[in-house]
Amino acid sequence: MNICIINGPNLNLLGLREKNIYGEISFDTYFKELKSVFSNINFSFFQSNIEGELINKIHELGFKYDGIILNAGGYTHTSVSLSDAIASVKTPVIEVHISNIYSREEFRKESLLAKNCIGSISGFGLSSYKLAIQAFLDLNK
Amino acid sequence: MNICIINGPNLNLLGLREKNIYGEISFDTYFKELKSVFSNINFSFFQSNIEGELINKIHELGFKYDGIILNAGGYTHTSVSLSDAIASVKTPVIEVHISNIYSREEFRKESLLAKNCIGSISGFGLSSYKLAIQAFLDLNK
Amino acid sequence: MNICIINGPNLNLLGLREKNIYGEISFDTYFKELKSVFSNINFSFFQSNIEGELINKIHELGFKYDGIILNAGGYTHTSVSLSDAIASVKTPVIEVHISNIYSREEFRKESLLAKNCIGSISGFGLSSYKLAIQAFLDLNK
Amino acid sequence: MNICIINGPNLNLLGLREKNIYGEISFDTYFKELKSVFSNINFSFFQSNIEGELINKIHELGFKYDGIILNAGGYTHTSVSLSDAIASVKTPVIEVHISNIYSREEFRKESLLAKNCIGSISGFGLSSYKLAIQAFLDLNK
Amino acid sequence: MNICIINGPNLNLLGLREKNIYGEISFDTYFKELKSVFSNINFSFFQSNIEGELINKIHELGFKYDGIILNAGGYTHTSVSLSDAIASVKTPVIEVHISNIYSREEFRKESLLAKNCIGSISGFGLSSYKLAIQAFLDLNK
Amino acid sequence: MNICIINGPNLNLLGLREKNIYGEISFDTYFKELKSVFSNINFSFFQSNIEGELINKIHELGFKYDGIILNAGGYTHTSVSLSDAIASVKTPVIEVHISNIYSREEFRKESLLAKNCIGSISGFGLSSYKLAIQAFLDLNK
Amino acid sequence: MNICIINGPNLNLLGLREKNIYGEISFDTYFKELKSVFSNINFSFFQSNIEGELINKIHELGFKYDGIILNAGGYTHTSVSLSDAIASVKTPVIEVHISNIYSREEFRKESLLAKNCIGSISGFGLSSYKLAIQAFLDLNK
Amino acid sequence: MNICIINGPNLNLLGLREKNIYGEISFDTYFKELKSVFSNINFSFFQSNIEGELINKIHELGFKYDGIILNAGGYTHTSVSLSDAIASVKTPVIEVHISNIYSREEFRKESLLAKNCIGSISGFGLSSYKLAIQAFLDLNK
Amino acid sequence: MNICIINGPNLNLLGLREKNIYGEISFDTYFKELKSVFSNINFSFFQSNIEGELINKIHELGFKYDGIILNAGGYTHTSVSLSDAIASVKTPVIEVHISNIYSREEFRKESLLAKNCIGSISGFGLSSYKLAIQAFLDLNK
Amino acid sequence: MNICIINGPNLNLLGLREKNIYGEISFDTYFKELKSVFSNINFSFFQSNIEGELINKIHELGFKYDGIILNAGGYTHTSVSLSDAIASVKTPVIEVHISNIYSREEFRKESLLAKNCIGSISGFGLSSYKLAIQAFLDLNK
Amino acid sequence: MNICIINGPNLNLLGLREKNIYGEISFDTYFKELKSVFSNINFSFFQSNIEGELINKIHELGFKYDGIILNAGGYTHTSVSLSDAIASVKTPVIEVHISNIYSREEFRKESLLAKNCIGSISGFGLSSYKLAIQAFLDLNK
Amino acid sequence: MNICIINGPNLNLLGLREKNIYGEISFDTYFKELKSVFSNINFSFFQSNIEGELINKIHELGFKYDGIILNAGGYTHTSVSLSDAIASVKTPVIEVHISNIYSREEFRKESLLAKNCIGSISGFGLSSYKLAIQAFLDLNK
Repeated sequence: MNICIINGPNLNLLGLREKNIYGEISFDTYFKELKSVFSNINFSFFQSNIEGELINKIHELGFKYDGIILNAGGYTHTSVSLSDAIASVKTPVIEVHISNIYSREEFRKESLLAKNCIGSISGFGLSSYKLAIQAFLDLNK
Repeated sequence: MNICIINGPNLNLLGLREKNIYGEISFDTYFKELKSVFSNINFSFFQSNIEGELINKIHELGFKYDGIILNAGGYTHTSVSLSDAIASVKTPVIEVHISNIYSREEFRKESLLAKNCIGSISGFGLSSYKLAIQAFLDLNK
Repeated sequence: MNICIINGPNLNLLGLREKNIYGEISFDTYFKELKSVFSNINFSFFQSNIEGELINKIHELGFKYDGIILNAGGYTHTSVSLSDAIASVKTPVIEVHISNIYSREEFRKESLLAKNCIGSISGFGLSSYKLAIQAFLDLNK
Repeated sequence: MNICIINGPNLNLLGLREKNIYGEISFDTYFKELKSVFSNINFSFFQSNIEGELINKIHELGFKYDGIILNAGGYTHTSVSLSDAIASVKTPVIEVHISNIYSREEFRKESLLAKNCIGSISGFGLSSYKLAIQAFLDLNK
Repeated sequence: MNICIINGPNLNLLGLREKNIYGEISFDTYFKELKSVFSNINFSFFQSNIEGELINKIHELGFKYDGIILNAGGYTHTSVSLSDAIASVKTPVIEVHISNIYSREEFRKESLLAKNCIGSISGFGLSSYKLAIQAFLDLNK
Repeated sequence: MNICIINGPNLNLLGLREKNIYGEISFDTYFKELKSVFSNINFSFFQSNIEGELINKIHELGFKYDGIILNAGGYTHTSVSLSDAIASVKTPVIEVHISNIYSREEFRKESLLAKNCIGSISGFGLSSYKLAIQAFLDLNK
Repeated sequence: MNICIINGPNLNLLGLREKNIYGEISFDTYFKELKSVFSNINFSFFQSNIEGELINKIHELGFKYDGIILNAGGYTHTSVSLSDAIASVKTPVIEVHISNIYSREEFRKESLLAKNCIGSISGFGLSSYKLAIQAFLDLNK
Repeated sequence: MNICIINGPNLNLLGLREKNIYGEISFDTYFKELKSVFSNINFSFFQSNIEGELINKIHELGFKYDGIILNAGGYTHTSVSLSDAIASVKTPVIEVHISNIYSREEFRKESLLAKNCIGSISGFGLSSYKLAIQAFLDLNK
Repeated sequence: MNICIINGPNLNLLGLREKNIYGEISFDTYFKELKSVFSNINFSFFQSNIEGELINKIHELGFKYDGIILNAGGYTHTSVSLSDAIASVKTPVIEVHISNIYSREEFRKESLLAKNCIGSISGFGLSSYKLAIQAFLDLNK
Repeated sequence: MNICIINGPNLNLLGLREKNIYGEISFDTYFKELKSVFSNINFSFFQSNIEGELINKIHELGFKYDGIILNAGGYTHTSVSLSDAIASVKTPVIEVHISNIYSREEFRKESLLAKNCIGSISGFGLSSYKLAIQAFLDLNK
Repeated sequence: MNICIINGPNLNLLGLREKNIYGEISFDTYFKELKSVFSNINFSFFQSNIEGELINKIHELGFKYDGIILNAGGYTHTSVSLSDAIASVKTPVIEVHISNIYSREEFRKESLLAKNCIGSISGFGLSSYKLAIQAFLDLNK
Repeated sequence: MNICIINGPNLNLLGLREKNIYGEISFDTYFKELKSVFSNINFSFFQSNIEGELINKIHELGFKYDGIILNAGGYTHTSVSLSDAIASVKTPVIEVHISNIYSREEFRKESLLAKNCIGSISGFGLSSYKLAIQAFLDLNK
């Protein structure tokens, strides 16, 4: 089973930035942990701050991977094009957020992506990613 | 570990109603399955179509349980009082939805509850409940 | 033919309350009249001020009755859950209103229920109920 | 008793147009049926696609007829002038719609006419007209 | 000096309709009075309930008259096309209203025409027309 | 003089819940204090988390009591039906709030009830109730 | 007959300011002209840039003058208090504007005052004042 | 191949009106040019300022022509009925505009018709009509 | 204990103006009554129709008085500056209204001041002031 | 004559993605066809999923090409910067869309680009591009 | 070079009021500092809490000074009249704010004045004034 | 002291594009001037039309520079991600605009960035950059 985790803008700063919201662990550290927990899954990982590179990656993997886990950061609320990209591919996409976006600013309450994803998980810190993997395992049972 | 699953209005019809959206299994059948999978958790279950009875149940359990999993159905989008009840208690609450509420009607996109819950999971069919339990296990590790 | 009339909040005060809007006859008196006019129909009647009890009644009858006539009073404008209940059952529901809700306050102009009912009748005083029965008779011809 | 049925824009295409919404019978056929059912009523009928001609007809009949049944089609949602015409005359007007306008597009949910009509009936196919006649009979009892 | 008074929908009922708002005199009676007061002006008068006929009349006169006084009734609030017609011609147009449209319903507070007229006069009963003529006299001094 | 205090959802948790907003005293303790201060008034008290039960209580007392003091909690902002109930009865109702609802979240700034109450008092902690009683005494002088 | 003209903020700059919109004549020059044209009227004049002084003047004259002509400048669009003052007095008030406020910025299209004035005249340059006087003469005939 | 060009309100003034926006050629002159360029197409042409006459024409031709090119002028933004008419007929309709409606006033940015047309062309002056014909030729290849 | 009552625009007309809303007693008469009832309080009183003078008074007293009772009339709904003034001083401010502002026009439902006041009392006629004094007494117990 | 076709996000998937909306031909195939039809035009083509690269290309060509045909995909509805780029250059830009964007989701009805383009063509499948070329030929005649 | 600094409502409390937002220095102290730094500029200073007095001052200086630096406090967001005053005079006006108004409450994000000022500076504490002076020096170089 | 100036989309065209708004000097020329005026500051400069590259640059410098001056062009109004980037880093950011964005189109009045910047300067042409540097010097004194 092939799963790709795609992180959007500013998520490269995890562990550095606004630690009260996002926690103190970098994504690299967490990713290693994930790979050891789910050792029978073939993971890949991609991060970019550029909207179009996220779209490119979704196009590249979206016809051959079994699942994409997408944390699109700020593009969640502004990118029609990213949402179109999700709708364009065959691989199912799960939207995740580290913080509970619904308890933050008003403009973070609308996700333009959600309607094209199969499901959404938010608010569980880095565990949101783990739950998404779990969800893909359940769906493929 | 004590976890209560609380289902709101119309969820008593699961397996009967709009099967294309909600699937064909009744919640009873699914609940048995959940209990056998997570055999070391002490589960309880409550369903009501009455907004105030959901509030009562949250008050009753909200100072002694370890977690509440709440699918508030239609009250998700209209009940300030239910949201206040979640804010009033100590037990953490996770919001779940069977369908991806973000790909349905416009008015289903706003959850009044989300801001007082620790996290939200939606779109994975009945597996949404299972992922919520998993999330509580992770949080208590 | 089985038809149930369901009245929502404050309609128990008919004949007592705001007579300039709702008229001077109690619903009991009117219901007797209806039963004598349509003597070959098997009627039942239910009134509650509690949103969830209206939902319960719709669930209870909604798979065995031939028609439900619903005057949901103030819940017409606020209850997503009641609207979901109507969508969940098999029995067709007709929405009725005693007064012309469109000539009253702005917030009474939107019905959350209408889209799930087969039709709407409003403004004819208690005759709105009679016309709804007539409509069910036409539909079953 | 004199009753006029006034049909607005595109209703001349009934039976031809969008049959899944409006049914397969032409209004002529249905009108004959109505006249035979209510043989003691003196009916007239008028159809126009021109907003101002509908206003003219309401002026012409609105001080001598006992009732007007108006299906204003698309003008329902855009015509302040037609609404003013209804308010200007003495004859009571009942608004009818063949389809349930509330389960269609958002912009069809607001009727500019409703507030000046004595009542509204929508969603019962061509039977909506029959129920409106029944309503006039009840009002004149 | 040539001035045309153009009245829109329902204004043919002046003196008949809603007398508490519009007064008891018919426009014919008032028009005679106007002609005798301003005997050196060459008046014409046109009324129609049909939006497009009002446009036609504005086109017909709008390149040869010295002034048009327009009371567009309900079309004031809905007609982009009438507003375009005013913008298309050379003759200056003054908008008049018998009642003070600003103290009535919310939707009567916006005039789509005003921006293309040279001025607006409202609230003075039939005297609004007289003041408009006075305004044209002032402008041509 | 008969006065009933009616408390809505979550107010049963007073003294337990969000003490920084609502203070540390339970309503029971405070109610005893009120009864001893106003010893010549005949008090009753009712609390429910169920919207319809609040409506039932208002119906029950609303034709025989001298005053109702209502703190409807979260239903203040969502319940058309409760507002209708207040309009339906003869007993005057005063709306009270413990906290200043206007300095909290945006959605707490609109009260659907206020327009049917004779007055509103908010922001004085539990003293809001005492002031409401004082207001009824003044009104009956 | 006593008539007062009240000018609001920035109108003291007439003839100096934005001449393309407001013309080149100062109000003093124009006021002399008005007094000579309507020699049998007893005029007074007041200008202030201070909202409350305009209110004071309306209070002072509003129970003894026959008419007030008010050009409230920018306060037209923002002053609930000035509108309340107009509603509080007995003297009828006519609202005038030099430019056609409807062909300018969006926020100039709403007048908070209009609903409490007997009528509105706008767009005729300084002649708007003259037409207002004419209107008072007509009303008192 | 039969194609009808239907022009709506004020387009009879082409060449006369607002030449900076609409150009200096009358439609008659242009129509002759079109007919000579596309000599194998059977053209007809209709213009009216009356909304309902445009609907009538669409009904008349909409079951026998191969294409309708509609420039509905101001009705583009206000006519639900015209939009319904387009949806009612079988002939495909292309919406054209002479000017780029998107670079003009805000209210010209919404077309109520577009959703029922097969395509839209705007901004190319009178060439917009020619491109629409070209589009019909392409569609029928 | 020092308390100042500050009245805003148009409240100098109490007893003269719109008696059906504001009653027949002048504030002077009522103020004498208040002083005799609360004889151990040191009262002062200020009224102005000028927004900035109300701000000046709040600045002047706001660091030495024990309480300010403010009825800001129409400025309640429009004055950010007055609201800032309340936030700037140390003396607690209670907002009062004679009428129930929530049962009047829509724009009177929002108070810009409320969020900076410790509490609000409205709807009890002149007794609203008395209740506010009572509230200050309770707060200082 | 030099014309560049610029395609935005997801249009690289043409022929692969959502074929019911976008058809089955890849853009490469279609581009070859275009080049053979308009053999005297010098074409270039650019596609990118990255907003800023589309801006770069417009800058690069926008002072030397004769025309740019832009299908900006999802950026049509969100990119102020792309719209600014179009306004910054000298080359005229025509906006094209394959599907009729007006008959799809609400958010696809607003184009931020249209106001800076000379014209818009949408709904004709890949023929939209051909019509745009035709339009440039007409403009340069 | 003559420059006037005009401060609006509540800014007389600088150094006293909400020190966490506005700092601890009074404006008097700061003004002395400014005068010594820019010793070749002829400064004047004016503060008022009264909107109309600010307008008066702008009129008085606005045809003879070289620059006006305006911090209009709360009137920034509500005063059309003050904005009109700025537009009426010849002297250029720079808008300054001590705090970053864009990071505060929603209603502080709109400045009605900005569009008539030559520029805006906000968020630099009292240094905002110094930067504005610097800006005038640059403009006059 | 290290300061970086970051320019966003289309600002590479300065001196070429819309000269009436942005002036005739290229940024290169101006940057040289700045470096010579502030010779003791260590400047760097970056321009990109790609949103994500601006984010990358802010990440790269945002933990080691003393100040960032950001003119984000069109991304000012659309980029949540850029705003998040500013909030993520330690270096203070000042927002600058060449033109007064508040006197241009409506959509240019909202800055998504402002709330995370320490201050904003707009409207002074290229001098806006100089003032921002001055502001950093003041802050570091």
